[in-house]
Amino acid sequence: MITTRMPDPLTRNVAAAVRIDDLHACLTDPIMTAMNQLNEVAERYPDALSFAAGRPIEEPFDVEDVHTALRLFCEYLNHERGWNRDQVRHAMFQYGPTRGIICDLVARALRDDDGIDVDESSIVITVGCQEAMFLMLRALRRDERDVVLAVSPTYIGLTGAAGLVDLPVLPVRSDATGIDLRDLDAQVAAARRQGLRPRALYVVPTFANPTGVTIDLPTRRRLLEAAAALDLYVLEDDPYGVFGDTEDRLPALKALDTARRVVYLGSFAKTALPGARVGFIVADQVVEHTDGSRAALADELSKIKSMVTVNTSPITQAVIAGYLLRHNFRLSAANRAVAATYTLRRRRLIAGLERRFGRQSGTAEISWNVPSGGFFCVLTLPFRADDRLLAHSARRYGVLWTPMSHFYPPGTVSHQMRLSFSGVTEEEIDRGLDRLADLIAEQMSRRKPGNHHPAAIHRRPQWTNASLGDDYE
Amino acid sequence: MITTRMPDPLTRNVAAAVRIDDLHACLTDPIMTAMNQLNEVAERYPDALSFAAGRPIEEPFDVEDVHTALRLFCEYLNHERGWNRDQVRHAMFQYGPTRGIICDLVARALRDDDGIDVDESSIVITVGCQEAMFLMLRALRRDERDVVLAVSPTYIGLTGAAGLVDLPVLPVRSDATGIDLRDLDAQVAAARRQGLRPRALYVVPTFANPTGVTIDLPTRRRLLEAAAALDLYVLEDDPYGVFGDTEDRLPALKALDTARRVVYLGSFAKTALPGARVGFIVADQVVEHTDGSRAALADELSKIKSMVTVNTSPITQAVIAGYLLRHNFRLSAANRAVAATYTLRRRRLIAGLERRFGRQSGTAEISWNVPSGGFFCVLTLPFRADDRLLAHSARRYGVLWTPMSHFYPPGTVSHQMRLSFSGVTEEEIDRGLDRLADLIAEQMSRRKPGNHHPAAIHRRPQWTNASLGDDYE
Repeated sequence: MITTRMPDPLTRNVAAAVRIDDLHACLTDPIMTAMNQLNEVAERYPDALSFAAGRPIEEPFDVEDVHTALRLFCEYLNHERGWNRDQVRHAMFQYGPTRGIICDLVARALRDDDGIDVDESSIVITVGCQEAMFLMLRALRRDERDVVLAVSPTYIGLTGAAGLVDLPVLPVRSDATGIDLRDLDAQVAAARRQGLRPRALYVVPTFANPTGVTIDLPTRRRLLEAAAALDLYVLEDDPYGVFGDTEDRLPALKALDTARRVVYLGSFAKTALPGARVGFIVADQVVEHTDGSRAALADELSKIKSMVTVNTSPITQAVIAGYLLRHNFRLSAANRAVAATYTLRRRRLIAGLERRFGRQSGTAEISWNVPSGGFFCVLTLPFRADDRLLAHSARRYGVLWTPMSHFYPPGTVSHQMRLSFSGVTEEEIDRGLDRLADLIAEQMSRRKPGNHHPAAIHRRPQWTNASLGDDYE
Repeated sequence: MITTRMPDPLTRNVAAAVRIDDLHACLTDPIMTAMNQLNEVAERYPDALSFAAGRPIEEPFDVEDVHTALRLFCEYLNHERGWNRDQVRHAMFQYGPTRGIICDLVARALRDDDGIDVDESSIVITVGCQEAMFLMLRALRRDERDVVLAVSPTYIGLTGAAGLVDLPVLPVRSDATGIDLRDLDAQVAAARRQGLRPRALYVVPTFANPTGVTIDLPTRRRLLEAAAALDLYVLEDDPYGVFGDTEDRLPALKALDTARRVVYLGSFAKTALPGARVGFIVADQVVEHTDGSRAALADELSKIKSMVTVNTSPITQAVIAGYLLRHNFRLSAANRAVAATYTLRRRRLIAGLERRFGRQSGTAEISWNVPSGGFFCVLTLPFRADDRLLAHSARRYGVLWTPMSHFYPPGTVSHQMRLSFSGVTEEEIDRGLDRLADLIAEQMSRRKPGNHHPAAIHRRPQWTNASLGDDYE
């Protein structure tokens, strides 16, 4: 971490080192340091097989696709919008509208492909889904009483963005349905008793990160009713929805949202390309100003964006728009081949786990869940799977994974690993599992006999009704 | 502002409108509403001649340049870094390192073109200069005692970003030298007496936005000494430096910064293209962690960035890198023709003001400053130049400008207009000034005799030593 140019303390007037305690508290948030450590491990062992990174497949992609997409969008502007060469240049070259220049195309994709019918005026194009999260959390955090809730375990990007605006994240337990709605009730009630204001619930309803779990349809409906009853917004994050076993997707919460409770956080990172860094937010809620006028929440988020990134690069918006045009606004169909590859990888991973650890299912010592799509599954072990074990795993066995503890509140001890299968070939999965099996055998041999761990989640279609939280120490 | 899809209040379970008071205070910050109003005026009168927007010239640009730049960078990765096709694809397609993939090229441009010698490890590539500002302000704002200072009048982007993190901005007066260092001392002392912690001073030292004023070399040196004596960081924003009358540029504060007081906020918006949304921050300061370890401030800013935008799109980084490669890292030379055009426009504007209002210099009723470069100058009038007058100017006379009040603390009444000449042709400048002269004549004729305004700033090479603040009411 030390740069090559530390100031010489003997030099006159060199600025004293600033103490980390004098900078914003997010910088000492365990999430931030964890992210850093995980990255450092990955950098230190570049040849390790990685079940850690939740990266999309890049093989079907060619740099030439960027050029093609850009040209397609420029032609579209010319033919469909009737823009001349100067207008197209202006759109690509200049500062642009903060809310973006492809809101209409995104609205069309949402309608045609996802069954989400929203007006383009409720959409803001963002620098990836991360900025969408940040804008919404910034808007919601008025003062120290505000809190958000999140289905636990929770994606680190949400927890990290909340930390930037000093917004506590209260965990809500997940169960077999993907979310324990009684716990949601209980957490909101407890927070209100403490004088806090629960503002929203964050959830990845389909093939969640980190668990791979999907919330079923009846629970989706009950979740929306609960949000209305509890007066919460629902922040829906849905980057993996099209990567399932079947083409019959469950409707997004936003598609079921007759009451405008849902703010939809959109990503093109997995369906198009991460390198564009283009996402969006759908916020068709109403904001009432003190003078009695009303605006869409999207308008307010757009104001915040103007002070964070001004606008999303029109060049990257053009690349995404070109993808949408090229695939007739059906990214689910465009991703069918890729989705099939993820399915093969997922099955290979599950089969590999069964082959190596299946015989232990009777003792329930080693278990995993079997998601029906997405990028991730979770392996539960009878020993701690923490950062120290990860470092050992990388150094000694050349295999990387993500300690699940990072998706829980700080200090949580976990016996679980997140295994991501999206970015590894079937052959790499086999080799990676061999290495993982060696690590596990080593750890098992060190255990005292009889020291069994109670958590038992094994080859069920979803989580068992034992909460993921059950394996805390 | 109303979207087409307001919820029907009779529908069951429709989320009640959230009150703006329940969202973050930045949304009711006058800066935010002002920005919105200014944009709305511009949108409502698209045919008005505009001295309002500080936009770069786009005529020399062609969309094909994006393709060329992208290809140049990919070739560079192949030839210079020895990356194969897969590695190049990976760089363009995937999530990338948070600090960016062109830090080395930016460091080279800073060294070769700007005389700023910093290691690439102290650079973070950002989504425009705006994100650079935001990251730094987020890091600096620990609690409610923290404040930053800014040379007043101040660029709205700084004030807006500070609002997002609840960081007050204390104005420091400008004088003939560009900054009143005695006032800086006084403001810091006063803040400390109130228990506040002044952390940094924001300044645009060359051809400032909004004034066009440049801080001279002796004052630059004294400013750095003052920053050391007062224990402040200096946040240097320098987007216009290459657009001067002569090729002899004053050194950036960062180029003079032997004591690592200066954090440099970099922009390619004016020297390459705004549409890339690529900027950077140079932060070679030292941060001391509680365990005694030390890191560069850039490392900490990079952590914050990972939770705002994850990383800057490699596609847009590639476009900027391609520009740097194409122009051999000399953007000042690459912009020579463009800079000459800005100079012609600036002279046309000043000559036009002289022709129309010069004879009134004796009464000092109408005056302006004469910057030696940049995008802006300031016109001082004997009547209020506020949002209401702007709306009238747009509707009745078809000419736009920016009320200077928006660059001062809320509630400030100003008799000044910011006139931007960067985005208007010489012919448009003439026509715009005709319209402006009509507006001014109308306003003058409405004034009561003898109601002269004291401010007098007229055709001096820089500001007179009357502070810009002198014409407040």
